[in-house]
Amino acid sequence: MTKVSVRGFTISVDGFGAGPDQSQEEPLGKGGEDLHRWLVGTRTFHAMTGKGGGSTGVDESYAARHMDGIGAYIMGRNMFGPVRGLWPDESWKGWWGDNPPYHAPVFVLTHHPRASVEMAGGTTFHFVTDGIESALRQAKAAANGRGVQIGGGVSTVRQCLQAGVVDEMHLAISPIVLGRGEALLAGIDLSALGLAVREHTASENALHVVLARR
Amino acid sequence: MTKVSVRGFTISVDGFGAGPDQSQEEPLGKGGEDLHRWLVGTRTFHAMTGKGGGSTGVDESYAARHMDGIGAYIMGRNMFGPVRGLWPDESWKGWWGDNPPYHAPVFVLTHHPRASVEMAGGTTFHFVTDGIESALRQAKAAANGRGVQIGGGVSTVRQCLQAGVVDEMHLAISPIVLGRGEALLAGIDLSALGLAVREHTASENALHVVLARR
Repeated sequence: MTKVSVRGFTISVDGFGAGPDQSQEEPLGKGGEDLHRWLVGTRTFHAMTGKGGGSTGVDESYAARHMDGIGAYIMGRNMFGPVRGLWPDESWKGWWGDNPPYHAPVFVLTHHPRASVEMAGGTTFHFVTDGIESALRQAKAAANGRGVQIGGGVSTVRQCLQAGVVDEMHLAISPIVLGRGEALLAGIDLSALGLAVREHTASENALHVVLARR
Repeated sequence: MTKVSVRGFTISVDGFGAGPDQSQEEPLGKGGEDLHRWLVGTRTFHAMTGKGGGSTGVDESYAARHMDGIGAYIMGRNMFGPVRGLWPDESWKGWWGDNPPYHAPVFVLTHHPRASVEMAGGTTFHFVTDGIESALRQAKAAANGRGVQIGGGVSTVRQCLQAGVVDEMHLAISPIVLGRGEALLAGIDLSALGLAVREHTASENALHVVLARR
């Protein structure tokens, strides 16, 4: 069976996966960038953004396994980009430049159809208009025995949790408060979904917990 | 001005300060005891419970300052004990035995009047029936220049946060999920209340953050 995971998803102490007032300039909302302080210093993130160096401690160990063994991704349209409503043209191709860090098929949930976009490095964006179940089916087929990762954002992860399809979730809790924004876990009973903490490690920058099926 | 603080208040990764189904046997609800794993191993907690030894690291440094400089406490009736409704008699005197760890006046919020109870070691329980503002006024007067601490539980801390009277709050985030229970921060905008993270340290058992007024 294909494993469905969420990895490296970061929330604030008050439970928000994104701050308020998201925009093209602040895709994670006001203060939301600060969530990922644990990640941006790591060797993996440095490499991903074309820089050398970077930390090699606890945070790096989680960053390094972020994409390990993943054959396909699912993300919400708001994570793919700031365009809302009908696609005005084909120009928006994600936040990540010509060679996105996925190197695998990415299924983007949207209400508005669009032709698939093939990028450099093995990433292809497919646009799914018939819901999360369909996206999961397509992603599992495309993953070809490897795992499926739910990339985000908050609303997509919530949908997957509520549908009971998440087998494993690595959460990082960042020592910041956002006040308002998108609450990841509000109204979601992780215990009833069969998820419990299997592993936890803290760094200077975050508390890492891995939830898995009991 | 008297400082009002919350200290050593622990929440789960999913934001609960107590689990579901609280009872006399499980005052913190199902799974709620696990919240305080960071605390029970410390030298301070050992001393408080008449044992020697205990840890001396990060967790201990937070446990040790728990009651530092505090002249009076406020707590909700459900933290004082499991008795609900009218007090049937004077027999319930808290969870803590003859010599409670407060050694100061403790103002217990309740709808049902009761005479003050003087305990060994300087703790006196006063019962306040006219609300949080009155309890704060009385606690500040009794604290005599020292600080007032909001002991809990969740509902009392929420009331104080919402009233905008909390100057400082030390939260410990425990690497567990509770699924259901009493959510500490749901619907509370800490940023709008002027609270931001001033300090954070992680141990093996918890992420500690201290929020203070900006």
